[in-house]
Amino acid sequence: MNFKLLDCTLRDGGYYTNWDFDKDIVETYFKSFNNLPVDYLEIGYRSNPMKSYLGEYFYCPTYVLEEAKSKSTKKLVIILNEKDVREDHVPNLLEPCIGYISMVRIAIDPKNFKRALGLAAAVKKLGFEVGFNVMYMSNWENEKEFLGQIKEVNGVADYFYMVDSFGGVYPEDVKKTFDIVRNQTDTKIGFHGHNNLQLALVNTLTAIDCGVSIVDATVTGMGRGAGNLQTELLLTALNGKGEIDLDFNALSQVVAPFEAMQKEYGWGTNLPYMVSGANSLPQKEVMSWVTKRYYSLNSIIRALSNQSRGLEDNVDLKNLDEEKKFKSAIIIGGGPSGKKHSKAINEFIEKQESICIIHSSSKNSQEFKDVSTLQIHCLAGNEGHRLEDSYIDMSIKDKLAILPPYPRSMGTYIPEKLEKVAFQLEAINFTDKFHESVTSLAIETALTLGVEKLYFAGYDGYLGEIKTQELELFNENEYIFKSLKKNGKVTPVSITPTLYDNLEPQSVFALI
Amino acid sequence: MNFKLLDCTLRDGGYYTNWDFDKDIVETYFKSFNNLPVDYLEIGYRSNPMKSYLGEYFYCPTYVLEEAKSKSTKKLVIILNEKDVREDHVPNLLEPCIGYISMVRIAIDPKNFKRALGLAAAVKKLGFEVGFNVMYMSNWENEKEFLGQIKEVNGVADYFYMVDSFGGVYPEDVKKTFDIVRNQTDTKIGFHGHNNLQLALVNTLTAIDCGVSIVDATVTGMGRGAGNLQTELLLTALNGKGEIDLDFNALSQVVAPFEAMQKEYGWGTNLPYMVSGANSLPQKEVMSWVTKRYYSLNSIIRALSNQSRGLEDNVDLKNLDEEKKFKSAIIIGGGPSGKKHSKAINEFIEKQESICIIHSSSKNSQEFKDVSTLQIHCLAGNEGHRLEDSYIDMSIKDKLAILPPYPRSMGTYIPEKLEKVAFQLEAINFTDKFHESVTSLAIETALTLGVEKLYFAGYDGYLGEIKTQELELFNENEYIFKSLKKNGKVTPVSITPTLYDNLEPQSVFALI
Repeated sequence: MNFKLLDCTLRDGGYYTNWDFDKDIVETYFKSFNNLPVDYLEIGYRSNPMKSYLGEYFYCPTYVLEEAKSKSTKKLVIILNEKDVREDHVPNLLEPCIGYISMVRIAIDPKNFKRALGLAAAVKKLGFEVGFNVMYMSNWENEKEFLGQIKEVNGVADYFYMVDSFGGVYPEDVKKTFDIVRNQTDTKIGFHGHNNLQLALVNTLTAIDCGVSIVDATVTGMGRGAGNLQTELLLTALNGKGEIDLDFNALSQVVAPFEAMQKEYGWGTNLPYMVSGANSLPQKEVMSWVTKRYYSLNSIIRALSNQSRGLEDNVDLKNLDEEKKFKSAIIIGGGPSGKKHSKAINEFIEKQESICIIHSSSKNSQEFKDVSTLQIHCLAGNEGHRLEDSYIDMSIKDKLAILPPYPRSMGTYIPEKLEKVAFQLEAINFTDKFHESVTSLAIETALTLGVEKLYFAGYDGYLGEIKTQELELFNENEYIFKSLKKNGKVTPVSITPTLYDNLEPQSVFALI
Repeated sequence: MNFKLLDCTLRDGGYYTNWDFDKDIVETYFKSFNNLPVDYLEIGYRSNPMKSYLGEYFYCPTYVLEEAKSKSTKKLVIILNEKDVREDHVPNLLEPCIGYISMVRIAIDPKNFKRALGLAAAVKKLGFEVGFNVMYMSNWENEKEFLGQIKEVNGVADYFYMVDSFGGVYPEDVKKTFDIVRNQTDTKIGFHGHNNLQLALVNTLTAIDCGVSIVDATVTGMGRGAGNLQTELLLTALNGKGEIDLDFNALSQVVAPFEAMQKEYGWGTNLPYMVSGANSLPQKEVMSWVTKRYYSLNSIIRALSNQSRGLEDNVDLKNLDEEKKFKSAIIIGGGPSGKKHSKAINEFIEKQESICIIHSSSKNSQEFKDVSTLQIHCLAGNEGHRLEDSYIDMSIKDKLAILPPYPRSMGTYIPEKLEKVAFQLEAINFTDKFHESVTSLAIETALTLGVEKLYFAGYDGYLGEIKTQELELFNENEYIFKSLKKNGKVTPVSITPTLYDNLEPQSVFALI
């Protein structure tokens, strides 16, 4: 076998555990690997102090290095984040590693490649092997400057790593990129794959065929987002091909505790991570939008793709006219009471002297289609699409569509029929958080229209078994209502049954 | 796009749910797929009555076909198991499908390829498209007869499928096999991948590059063992390459309920499935040995590989000599009391007139190394290896090793030092179950030696929180003791604390 294997479970897996691991898992890890055909173990970062809690293997204090060295017969590795480390930090960070650590790797954004060369030289001076882990491989074609500089790695690094951060490359891309690098340097080349598209194994085997000198994997693929190539998969595949002998007992011993952790933390690929991979979008960003649940996956992908391609998908609309004044407004949410009591709510609305209806959800909006006052549809999040799907016979008489302030992070989507009556808010001022929420948008709209009384209907809260997402939404709305009360201009009143503490309860039946 | 996509989630996923699916999941499935660029949906099997419970989508009664047809705009497919279906079953099984089902696929062992041709002709006569799903692709090189018959598929089947049942092929194998098939027939070719080595995507994309006309996938990869290529991965990858438009909302709608089921049922690859894939071993067999936990993964892989390669790994030893007679025996298990009370047990043994020690576990065996009577080590399951690891200074004076009857399903392993004193039992007669258990082996050994009294020590049972495996072992031992009591020859007595109901409790301290 003319290539080396590096396992970086503790380092890359730390993204899930904040770099803290149970003592007995670490013990099993080192003990099992002593019986496995792997050359290097990367145990963590060395780092300057950061402004948040980061665990044991993010800093790897000396006693961690000592313990690892005493337990492991393998060459040990630590990694530095180039963006946070300068040449003058090197003595402090790395002198304690001498005698314990064989290789120091540096995680490098290709944009900072030049700067990293100096850092690498300082590391090399202390006698370590140096690994140059250049990230975002699937986007290198856009990094012309970096591509022209690769040869400067000569004599500075022992390994030049192609890191598929997005899990977005295919075997043919590995071949192409390998050739590009090889044409510029004789430095040994490495490959670090991610598994968004479940191509980590085939990409790694392709890299080996190309002639790389080192490849990475982690136990059960434990690692940021979709995770890495699984060490057990790589070893089993190489064993199946007759390239290595393998102690499957040692392998299953180390896999077992990490499989148990995986059930808890859930690394591995899924649809959003696949999307990130297939389109080289940062998985952190895709996931954070997906879990915020305001937007559909279609919108998120469209917006992020537009952004990454530099396409303009935002429209700077006219601001909502503050001259349109109403004495009161009723914000109608999507809760069941909005439908159940719609007859009474309709009657209540007809009785008011100067009221407008603000629909924060498309769900109940059809129930109020015959009311003759101004109806405003809030198009935050995915509501533009939902409204289009649900509200078929839309006339634009007495209707407005309101969008969040420009620019909108997920782009602008307005149903065609509403384009002529679409406005945006200038800003959302009454709350410091949850500016993407339809409820925030509805309240700021009411405040912009200068209302003195603000009613809510269809804000029921959730009874019985509550899903995590519902709980989040409940807490978010509660925070928004609290901000509104603090703001002091109006008192929010719910005229249908509600579980929100910060809505003052009244009954629609007492008001008609 | 010049190839078709087939989703077979309900059919292949049925292996996990016994072909029953919640109504609302099926509803979501059909509805979402109406908005996805997939051509065929395979909804299940049609089958003759089988002698066990198999659910709705294993039989697909007419109302299931009707409902599917009413909900789906896609071409619907069912599959037949060739091994269970003959030509004369075709009218009964398939006439009810006319008007609902577009394609009938046939799952075929290459050994039965010829026979399947007749079945296919009968299916074709009813007007269906016919898919010929030939299994075990990674072993076809050993199926010379079949390889010479492929051309007979001409005019019989519409699609000739290469099915990677073991999830064991690599992209280069897909290319080679495609060429072998293409050289014999102009029939359209299909590919059905499994994901043991996470190569299902790259193999499928390779098959597409080769020019196959149809490929399969299932939502979240739901399918037997390690499962299939994930539909969402294939669609996302094809979309990322610009080959298809994709409604990610519809896709995430159908993925969500299956992801929830996956948490419950746990399909997806793991180390034993990877081993199956890398060595083309039947995953069902690997998993059933792994979960039986008698053997280590090393032993299982060695034995199954030997079997599949036709290598002899069994040694027919001499049978245990029935002339060696003892009045009594003590079977020492691995429970903590075997160590805790070892002093008393040693004293008890010395006091007996004619006793032998039978070690059913290596765990406590060191505690009795100085006793001067015959010591017998039971080498069922993994005990040969365990004994070697734990019992360093083994002398063979007054020692025997006993193995289960020949041939042993996991081969023969005897520590070198014990080879000269190793015997096997002729049969295990006293119990109808658990013949692989060390306790069964120990008891049958005692009975063979003609004991009148049979003592147990170190059979504690489990207190506190019990793991599934421990519970299984407990129930298994209880069954074994019960069989022994029914057998009537001796009464099993435990002289250390025990939770087993079928061991008669006495105290070692009362006996010394």
